[in-house]
Amino acid sequence: MSRAGEFCETDKGGVYRAIAERRDVRSGFLPEPLSEPVLLRLLEAAHHAPSVGFMQPWRFLVIRSRPVRMRVHEIFIETNRAATKTYAGAQAAQYASLKLEGILEAPQNLCILCDPENERGHGLGRQSMPETAIYSAVCAVQNLWLAARAEGVGVGWVSILDPDALKQMLGVPSNMVVVAYLCLGYVDSFDVKPELERLGWEQRIPLENVLRLDHFDQPYFPEETTK
Amino acid sequence: MSRAGEFCETDKGGVYRAIAERRDVRSGFLPEPLSEPVLLRLLEAAHHAPSVGFMQPWRFLVIRSRPVRMRVHEIFIETNRAATKTYAGAQAAQYASLKLEGILEAPQNLCILCDPENERGHGLGRQSMPETAIYSAVCAVQNLWLAARAEGVGVGWVSILDPDALKQMLGVPSNMVVVAYLCLGYVDSFDVKPELERLGWEQRIPLENVLRLDHFDQPYFPEETTK
Repeated sequence: MSRAGEFCETDKGGVYRAIAERRDVRSGFLPEPLSEPVLLRLLEAAHHAPSVGFMQPWRFLVIRSRPVRMRVHEIFIETNRAATKTYAGAQAAQYASLKLEGILEAPQNLCILCDPENERGHGLGRQSMPETAIYSAVCAVQNLWLAARAEGVGVGWVSILDPDALKQMLGVPSNMVVVAYLCLGYVDSFDVKPELERLGWEQRIPLENVLRLDHFDQPYFPEETTK
Repeated sequence: MSRAGEFCETDKGGVYRAIAERRDVRSGFLPEPLSEPVLLRLLEAAHHAPSVGFMQPWRFLVIRSRPVRMRVHEIFIETNRAATKTYAGAQAAQYASLKLEGILEAPQNLCILCDPENERGHGLGRQSMPETAIYSAVCAVQNLWLAARAEGVGVGWVSILDPDALKQMLGVPSNMVVVAYLCLGYVDSFDVKPELERLGWEQRIPLENVLRLDHFDQPYFPEETTK
């Protein structure tokens, strides 16, 4: 039987380039807002994520209002105050020196929500792993992130936020889940390496150390010692 | 300040093409296994996903063994028996007619796991939203899925599996989470539309119906009625 074709080298190269050059951006956002067509292309990319049972449980809350972003930033400050206390010594100093969000600098933020028990999709695929509804919304984040990189738009994911405070402030119904809070905007540059790698906070793990074959105890490359 | 560039039109086109043409594939897998270089490119793509605190909590368990896949298939049969009972009437008949997995046809399966409390990343970003560790592994799934589409490789996500039975069978430590079970292989074709859309199980929601602006109660396009 004939095999469905792969992409041509140029199209394939674009995909791998976006994957390799995508960065979590926390600084260097420029004040110019995204044009409406660019923002809608990014949201369409997110909307074309896979979803369990084709339920499309994501909701996209675009935040352009500066007063709203200022209130989100206050939630960040409060949440980060608690997080900072979990570090000590040199690590505490390094943590305090990190720029961890661009809520006010990025002219638009995006809160990606999930309605995990929505009847769309008729429950298909959700009986044994109901968490796949939320995972569908995470796939939407990653689609948007890669499309944004191709558009020259920086994206930073801020997880140092109290999700309950955020929901209350944004009027999100109680049955919905805050999956991701993103800062989006044009940037002055993209780092060659992830910032946390460049600053020595954490190193990249060699791929072979996270691979297994047929059973969790079996390394993928028998000659390697996996960690 | 100068703005970081977007991709050229050809590279950008590759990214949007992968997002638009990616499909959840359950049938049409061909028996020829993926070559090692192709499989490793897909795994490298997954390994370059974003991760909270750069913790890289994913573990990739490649399953090529047919006996192992047969046991996974038995878990699917058992789990799907329970799922089938939740439908009645015409919907039950339609559900029973759907092909929901390619565990045995796809010459390689991939179980994506997460070690959500690993000390890598030193907890950065995980105090208030610890679920972002698992979300990082989901981003790895989506990176792999898009790269696979570019390579002409079909991917099907099987969520109709009892994760505890799967963990026990594959020897996965209790502290790890089964995030996704994927079937990977060359295919005879890619559907133009999602199969569940084509078969009428569910429809695509118009983008504007999932958009909000600045507050959950505020539609993005004021003239539209959102649902």
